[in-house]
Amino acid sequence: MVPIITLLTDFGIKDGYVGSLKGIMLGICPEARLIDISHLVPPQDVRAAAYLLASHYRDFPTGTIHLAVIDPGVGSERRALAIRTSHYFFVGPDNGLFSWILEEQSGARIVSLENRQFWRSAVSMTFHGRDIFAPVAAHLAKGIDIDEFGPPCTPARVQWDPVKRSKEALTGEVIYIDHFGNAITNVTHSDLQGAGKPENITIQIGPHRIDAFVDTYSDASHSTAVALIGSSGHLEIAVNQGNAAELLNIRAGVLVIIHLS
Amino acid sequence: MVPIITLLTDFGIKDGYVGSLKGIMLGICPEARLIDISHLVPPQDVRAAAYLLASHYRDFPTGTIHLAVIDPGVGSERRALAIRTSHYFFVGPDNGLFSWILEEQSGARIVSLENRQFWRSAVSMTFHGRDIFAPVAAHLAKGIDIDEFGPPCTPARVQWDPVKRSKEALTGEVIYIDHFGNAITNVTHSDLQGAGKPENITIQIGPHRIDAFVDTYSDASHSTAVALIGSSGHLEIAVNQGNAAELLNIRAGVLVIIHLS
Amino acid sequence: MVPIITLLTDFGIKDGYVGSLKGIMLGICPEARLIDISHLVPPQDVRAAAYLLASHYRDFPTGTIHLAVIDPGVGSERRALAIRTSHYFFVGPDNGLFSWILEEQSGARIVSLENRQFWRSAVSMTFHGRDIFAPVAAHLAKGIDIDEFGPPCTPARVQWDPVKRSKEALTGEVIYIDHFGNAITNVTHSDLQGAGKPENITIQIGPHRIDAFVDTYSDASHSTAVALIGSSGHLEIAVNQGNAAELLNIRAGVLVIIHLS
Repeated sequence: MVPIITLLTDFGIKDGYVGSLKGIMLGICPEARLIDISHLVPPQDVRAAAYLLASHYRDFPTGTIHLAVIDPGVGSERRALAIRTSHYFFVGPDNGLFSWILEEQSGARIVSLENRQFWRSAVSMTFHGRDIFAPVAAHLAKGIDIDEFGPPCTPARVQWDPVKRSKEALTGEVIYIDHFGNAITNVTHSDLQGAGKPENITIQIGPHRIDAFVDTYSDASHSTAVALIGSSGHLEIAVNQGNAAELLNIRAGVLVIIHLS
Repeated sequence: MVPIITLLTDFGIKDGYVGSLKGIMLGICPEARLIDISHLVPPQDVRAAAYLLASHYRDFPTGTIHLAVIDPGVGSERRALAIRTSHYFFVGPDNGLFSWILEEQSGARIVSLENRQFWRSAVSMTFHGRDIFAPVAAHLAKGIDIDEFGPPCTPARVQWDPVKRSKEALTGEVIYIDHFGNAITNVTHSDLQGAGKPENITIQIGPHRIDAFVDTYSDASHSTAVALIGSSGHLEIAVNQGNAAELLNIRAGVLVIIHLS
Repeated sequence: MVPIITLLTDFGIKDGYVGSLKGIMLGICPEARLIDISHLVPPQDVRAAAYLLASHYRDFPTGTIHLAVIDPGVGSERRALAIRTSHYFFVGPDNGLFSWILEEQSGARIVSLENRQFWRSAVSMTFHGRDIFAPVAAHLAKGIDIDEFGPPCTPARVQWDPVKRSKEALTGEVIYIDHFGNAITNVTHSDLQGAGKPENITIQIGPHRIDAFVDTYSDASHSTAVALIGSSGHLEIAVNQGNAAELLNIRAGVLVIIHLS
């Protein structure tokens, strides 16, 4: 089976850092297929990266290795991880990147990357992506057993703010603005179960009230703000054929209140 | 022969949607080569996408499958298509994306994607790229006959504004601004045949008159606006070592008048 | 061995030009692995491209073919080159792109691309990337001997401004601003050898003085401007968890003075 390695970073795409990761990996595992998820994660925004990874990892075949390097703590004492779940592998820093995935996956095998045999011979202080994480991902692609990379460990569980729930409302927040200006929230399909009929729900975001809870963008009138469950299962605020983030002045971190009735 | 699938979308590159398409396709056809044409088509600009596709599809080997997802009507009643021409396959929504290609290609086989057997099992309302178009492209790459995907159909021919022709002038418009700020028009090499010698042609765009019709950028003086036939066969307005769109304040839709003499 | 071709251009990623290069190369060498280094080199900034190439080429396996197309002189008389060093191949225009690599590599074989047999049959005036450089790179990937492409030649050595050295100071300049806003200078690790202890060095850039010479970003206080040797061996000016170029108003070309003591 051809091994697949996906890449998720905040390296940007103008500098060649991503190319270096790929060069290093092909040197170790020439047959690996390398697929970009994104390199434009907002710099050092671990929560945005955790959302993107959780949204997309399941669309890849069983056995795929997901390499994620959003690493504000590079060079500090934070741990480096490899994880094996029932269907996938994950490699990256221990800073919460994988916390949403680990909630979904019981019985994951998690090891601390300590065996320097699988690192690049010269490890720089600032580029563990190239020097530790990419080589480990490529060695996983070659079939090296996860236990070879280091001892089992318990990852730092970083707790993102959960959705708050009262009798009258759910309160969440915007965690990501996508390419189209849609505002993705931390409120999921399952949070909304039991919230009543969509026509009875009103959503408040900043000074704006949104009454239209639709199934699909094209159900909405042109330029109308609507709420919908996006393809990732998260509640999104969107404007049909427009940029919701710009039009409604929404940024990551803005509160979203779902009034039940 | 290794199958090649190209991707052209307006998904952007920050969100991971393109990664999902690729993951889905590799799950169906692991040996496919996946090549990006662009994911930065201006959002929902079907005509710009049609231009890009028509400009680049011929540079790929025979048998290449071109997947194009610019789909403002996702979730509505618009049809989904697969097309086989003498050398290529095309997959995408029926909204005019392929109209320039179909003008060049007689005898194309065109089917309406209706056989759910080749779709993703769960089809979302907002992401037919992942759930219908990508799986179909990957099944084509595996060698499934095009007639398996649905019944033959006649695509909606969306008629873009044609170049207008009078005794004194041709009138076209800017359809795309490229990365360098060059303004690509809908006027082609063949429209200009019989237009007389280049030195007798004057081009008017907004308040600007351009007298220099050159063969290549480096024929122009520094910072001079020129017209030339670009590598795609379309008339372009460019500024040597400068950004024509910014300097001349040109946007898509601006009229271009070619005065003959 | 699977051949690898890397791509470095200033074509941008919105237009499909990069896709065309890849389509052409796969038509010639279907088994080639195509890896992007960057397509967002500042337009026509040959020195920035030379820096990026010199920073990343070594991270690829032996035998990799590095295709670089930053070509302000396309259509003029500048030569086209293929280069074979002890470990790599390089293909691109003769405008200084490879001068830093050639300084590091003695005994390189350098030929002038003149054999039209390996070009695209129709060569446009404006797109030698597609019509000359990409086909040559793909033929190299197929194993064609470098001497088949044309006669040996001596490349134009473009001399970038060197670091100036006096008793009291080194004077260099910023050559590139990366995705994170770090300002990369032309001053290298080896320029700084013998410069004394880091704690005795003061760096001046515009009106700013930087006293903190650190090993890694996380050694710096939040929002403090620091100097460090980056993963490419060049002196960088950075701001911990901030964008140095914006905060200190630095652009490519700005002088950097390293005061010794």
